[in-house]
Amino acid sequence: MLTAELIKKKRDNAVLSAEEIRFLINGYVSGDVPDYQMAALLMAVWFNGMNAQETYELTMAMMHSGDMVDLSSIPGVKVDKHSTGGVADTTTLVALPLVAACGGKVAKMSGRGLGHTGGTLDKLESIPGFSVSQPMARFVEIVREQGLSVIGQTGDLVPADKMLYALRDVTATIDNISLIASSIMSKKLAAGSDAIVLDVKTGSGAFMKSEEDAVALARAMVGIGKRAGKSVSAVVSDMSQPLGEAVGNALEVREAVEILQGHHGDGDLARVSLTLAARMLTASGLGTVDEAEKKLQNALSGGAGLESLKQMISAQGGDPAVCDDTGRLPAAARRYSIEATASGYVGAMETDRIGIAALLLGAGRRTKEDRIDPAVGIWMKKRLGDPVEEGEPLADFYVNDEANLEEAVSEFQRAISIEEQKPEPPKLVRTIIEE
Amino acid sequence: MLTAELIKKKRDNAVLSAEEIRFLINGYVSGDVPDYQMAALLMAVWFNGMNAQETYELTMAMMHSGDMVDLSSIPGVKVDKHSTGGVADTTTLVALPLVAACGGKVAKMSGRGLGHTGGTLDKLESIPGFSVSQPMARFVEIVREQGLSVIGQTGDLVPADKMLYALRDVTATIDNISLIASSIMSKKLAAGSDAIVLDVKTGSGAFMKSEEDAVALARAMVGIGKRAGKSVSAVVSDMSQPLGEAVGNALEVREAVEILQGHHGDGDLARVSLTLAARMLTASGLGTVDEAEKKLQNALSGGAGLESLKQMISAQGGDPAVCDDTGRLPAAARRYSIEATASGYVGAMETDRIGIAALLLGAGRRTKEDRIDPAVGIWMKKRLGDPVEEGEPLADFYVNDEANLEEAVSEFQRAISIEEQKPEPPKLVRTIIEE
Repeated sequence: MLTAELIKKKRDNAVLSAEEIRFLINGYVSGDVPDYQMAALLMAVWFNGMNAQETYELTMAMMHSGDMVDLSSIPGVKVDKHSTGGVADTTTLVALPLVAACGGKVAKMSGRGLGHTGGTLDKLESIPGFSVSQPMARFVEIVREQGLSVIGQTGDLVPADKMLYALRDVTATIDNISLIASSIMSKKLAAGSDAIVLDVKTGSGAFMKSEEDAVALARAMVGIGKRAGKSVSAVVSDMSQPLGEAVGNALEVREAVEILQGHHGDGDLARVSLTLAARMLTASGLGTVDEAEKKLQNALSGGAGLESLKQMISAQGGDPAVCDDTGRLPAAARRYSIEATASGYVGAMETDRIGIAALLLGAGRRTKEDRIDPAVGIWMKKRLGDPVEEGEPLADFYVNDEANLEEAVSEFQRAISIEEQKPEPPKLVRTIIEE
Repeated sequence: MLTAELIKKKRDNAVLSAEEIRFLINGYVSGDVPDYQMAALLMAVWFNGMNAQETYELTMAMMHSGDMVDLSSIPGVKVDKHSTGGVADTTTLVALPLVAACGGKVAKMSGRGLGHTGGTLDKLESIPGFSVSQPMARFVEIVREQGLSVIGQTGDLVPADKMLYALRDVTATIDNISLIASSIMSKKLAAGSDAIVLDVKTGSGAFMKSEEDAVALARAMVGIGKRAGKSVSAVVSDMSQPLGEAVGNALEVREAVEILQGHHGDGDLARVSLTLAARMLTASGLGTVDEAEKKLQNALSGGAGLESLKQMISAQGGDPAVCDDTGRLPAAARRYSIEATASGYVGAMETDRIGIAALLLGAGRRTKEDRIDPAVGIWMKKRLGDPVEEGEPLADFYVNDEANLEEAVSEFQRAISIEEQKPEPPKLVRTIIEE
């Protein structure tokens, strides 16, 4: 097989076979297919796309490029959740303890934040003592015994994705549905769960700005799951404003704990978390959606969800007392109130700018090498459609290092537009795509 | 400037500025822009194309990437000719001596054959003693004194083209009008002539199989020339059969000499050569097309063209006596007649297959490293539309090494289709595009 011929085939909008896709991915990982040929292929894929079967074959070839997690020693259905990323998106810390409290088995490998989006590992590490590095055997043991563990990636999972993502990043080939779907799904499938619930974000803080693109990505990923014989469903949810109120690592843990304590129950973060959790339970064979929702409400109001979070924190070396007293979490030295510069209604948010404002305070990282400050961030006081008076607080900034404070405030103010007309608030859950 | 942003710009079908194109080409030659980013850019160009101004700026950036030839010490207009390549395309050895005999100044850097197409340097080297390697000062001196010299490329002309061509070859990005046009024109413009006459081939033996593509390439190259302030015109001519009768190096020199001796004057090779030569003279300010054609006919019939070829051969160390006795050229050990397997009319030729048949006999090279045999090749006996009887000779094969003879015969027989209906013969000169 000649790589140049395969590039030409995709360039000319023909369909690559499973064998051809494996040849390309295996060759790329082994070094036989050089970066420059893969770059040309990726650009041809960007223009011509891949059909559902090609996307599945690409996912399988990538999945098989490295280690795979074996969760077979955990009885029952193992269920995973993945969000495409956003701002104040703390669903993992709310939904997963509730699922575990209702009998679900969740063995989750999570990631770190980059750019305007936060990462679950960074949030968990703001809990004193918590370790996201657990040996595989211990990870499996925690899930078997307590139903929930969240760790960083261990082993050499999907090296093809690391290589391809780095190449796509510098060749303007990130934003293609098949490439995004195969990148996410190859990692999720290699992580070993039987069922996966996806949360695909859409709006100004999401990677997929338009709902149409988000639905297309959701369909592509559910389609891959179906072909792979897994139970996969996707919730397409709103990210045209920060999902929760807190943006920043310890702040987001605080908000998640508060929800599990029974506060903010009608907030968007709680609602999306419960939607995802219900799908995770049904995918685990633990009841219909209605039954699952009832179980979850009980786990929330009865404190079982909070108890489940405490158990995981303990098992991974953290201080479970943060669940009773969030004052034990790292706290910033100063708090500044950011005020509205006009009266009217909160009309639109450039949500990614709010993520960048938090990053500028130290809550996020521009490059993988940047260090973050767990204590700092932003606590939102207003949501889309809220009335606001000039001088009224829009948010609180939690600050340690003030070096970029001015820039962060400017970024935040530019992110929020105050309008005369009250806008229609966005629909929170746009659609749910079942396998 | 970020390379990934420029790739994205072209991917999204925006227009790159002169500065951006220079940044990319200079960066690629210096190593700052890696192969993989250039490969992605080339594929984006393949899909979205470049407009006339971008194509010109690309040509200029490539031209300035290395040495440039200075022909200013030669008085008057210097004129060059370029063919896009074909089979039995010996126009250089016919047209250029005639142009020089009529007062034109031709300083030509030529290339070698690759694949099914022949190269002028290989043909000239079949003349005993002829050297295509001349110091630049001697090259200029020969042109100044005798009006004509043909050498191989000297110095580091257009290194960007060498790098880009090698990359395009393995990334399925060869066949794009802007990339082809800039590749050819950057080299022609760096070679220092004031006027350029292009011969763009179309048909089964040409790179541009369709006339539409050939005309588009011709227009692109003439457009570049105009923007560069040079006199550039293009003849689009037929390559749906070998242009001359001889395919192979010494055989083609023999045919060119025979034409300059006054034979085959109504053949296609002579007709295209005279068309090109007339354009070269008018571009040199040496008369109208009508006047130029009369001068050229006189140079042909009076032997001045042959004399001019002799002078160049002498000046470059070759044996000028080959012009009086072509028996002094290298000769193959055996000659085989290839006969028609059916009766009818010569209906179509896969001309590139005829070139490959000659290559298999040793007349050409598959890769740059292959050695060629100057003596071997094919002498065509039939042209499109000719009636043919079963068993009648279609061509003579001139053979030394018989290792690939059977494959060459098979390739040749597959190249020629004998049909019942007499086909319309192709139009030789399709169109002429003036600046």
